Amino acid sequence: MKELEFVKYLTHKFRAGPGVVRGIGDDCAVLKYTKDRYMLLTCDMIIEGTHFTKKTIPYQIGWKAMAVNISDIASMGGIPKYALVSAGISRNKDMKFLKEIVRGMDAISRKFGVNIIGGDTNASGKTVVNVTLLGEVEKKCLITRNGAKAGDLIFVTGALGEGAVKHLKFFPRLKEARILVKNFKINSMIDLSDGLAMDLNRVARASNVGARVYESLLPLPASLRGRPGRRAEAIFVGEDFELLFTASIKESKKIMKRMGEKNDLPVTLIGEVADKRLGVILVGEEGRTKQLRRKGFSHL
Amino acid sequence: MKELEFVKYLTHKFRAGPGVVRGIGDDCAVLKYTKDRYMLLTCDMIIEGTHFTKKTIPYQIGWKAMAVNISDIASMGGIPKYALVSAGISRNKDMKFLKEIVRGMDAISRKFGVNIIGGDTNASGKTVVNVTLLGEVEKKCLITRNGAKAGDLIFVTGALGEGAVKHLKFFPRLKEARILVKNFKINSMIDLSDGLAMDLNRVARASNVGARVYESLLPLPASLRGRPGRRAEAIFVGEDFELLFTASIKESKKIMKRMGEKNDLPVTLIGEVADKRLGVILVGEEGRTKQLRRKGFSHL
Repeated sequence: MKELEFVKYLTHKFRAGPGVVRGIGDDCAVLKYTKDRYMLLTCDMIIEGTHFTKKTIPYQIGWKAMAVNISDIASMGGIPKYALVSAGISRNKDMKFLKEIVRGMDAISRKFGVNIIGGDTNASGKTVVNVTLLGEVEKKCLITRNGAKAGDLIFVTGALGEGAVKHLKFFPRLKEARILVKNFKINSMIDLSDGLAMDLNRVARASNVGARVYESLLPLPASLRGRPGRRAEAIFVGEDFELLFTASIKESKKIMKRMGEKNDLPVTLIGEVADKRLGVILVGEEGRTKQLRRKGFSHL
Repeated sequence: MKELEFVKYLTHKFRAGPGVVRGIGDDCAVLKYTKDRYMLLTCDMIIEGTHFTKKTIPYQIGWKAMAVNISDIASMGGIPKYALVSAGISRNKDMKFLKEIVRGMDAISRKFGVNIIGGDTNASGKTVVNVTLLGEVEKKCLITRNGAKAGDLIFVTGALGEGAVKHLKFFPRLKEARILVKNFKINSMIDLSDGLAMDLNRVARASNVGARVYESLLPLPASLRGRPGRRAEAIFVGEDFELLFTASIKESKKIMKRMGEKNDLPVTLIGEVADKRLGVILVGEEGRTKQLRRKGFSHL
């Protein structure tokens, strides 16, 4: 069974009710909240054997479980506030293992202003941690993945292709997201949890558009530079947790101007939003194009 | 590691911040929300091998995962509203397995007015389902587990000792909870997820009181009646998901009057709240007393 199929099935089955601004299908659900703010809600589960290994140090399990959720709130333009944590831990693990998970979670929660307000612990064969995160966003700052428009330029934060190395200790792009939504008109945004190919296709599908990205523009980390064969890592490997966003050319110029003036917005232009008929394509360095399939890290 | 130790550790580590009315340590966390309502938040994870078996039919896994959370909202006097669901499913399972989980969850959600607004699916060796439920409660209707007062009478809904049989298909006592909080002054309430002994001790500890319950008053199901040795099941076996609540004698009289008039409040008086020095004791049918230890279904 494919995750996409399942999400489609859920979206169909659970129609949003009153009070629900956006239900299943984006990085967060959006609820009515106060006069000028929406509530954002997201949950992510990480499981031993899927998202980390038996040998992963528990501090990093705690860090990552919270980080992936903060990244979801960031990608909608919001601020994380409250978290609920459920954990399944083997009876063989000692108190120290669990405390180390809590210590990692506590460290990142403090850095990002998250208040852990509830929890549930259970016996489990393998370690599993679920975090549910509540956030809020000013109505005018809410960004969804379905607002990309043909002609928009496409940007990503940071570098791509480091997921395999940094997924256990990454720093969610909350600060950058807030700078973007508070200073510019961003049309769509998503976090790259499952790789550029998969997540750009999600934006394209949700927005009913196509996209063209240029291989030569992809920001590669030093470790991948000069190894063209490794570009695939920047495209198909997930867990980068960088932000991908689109904005009109006019807004993009403002964004690039700001980048030149201040040093707090490490973003790179990688392509443009196009008509739906184009599909989602990658333009190679030699000019040849190929369709970017929805291939990448699938959760099922 | 014991769950109680861990919860104590968490409670100490995570002090409630602004906006948090009650943090870790009750059935739900309580947040400021609107002028006259609080928001309730709870999460519960159920795991194959701990809360259900490999053979449990998936419809019942879905039902139970949602039911335990609705029960938590009920025990605080609230109404469930929105749910986020995370699931870990084996790659060997087919789409039908997952759809059946969703069907069970959907069935109970419709009955109780819950709107599923988000989800996350993952590959996992064993099946694991986490539900986070948001609810709301009128400020004057909020009931916590720490309000029991010496002299209160103790009641439970339904019958005790059926957890092993009904835990996969139980009907959360939401209707009864709402009748109680809207019509009477309830001092404390908890749902019996881990057995009478464990959960009554939780109320006693949180409220800084003792309690005395009478073995002869315990409402046993037909299946356990006349089998005195099996009383232990009503006391130490968890997953009954009945409500235990306390109220002053004056309010208790009103509750009992109402029970005589209408047929919608199946509650039974089982004992009384006492001074802390008494501890939590069970009075046997022959009059002998014994301490009820915090023994029961522990999650770790």
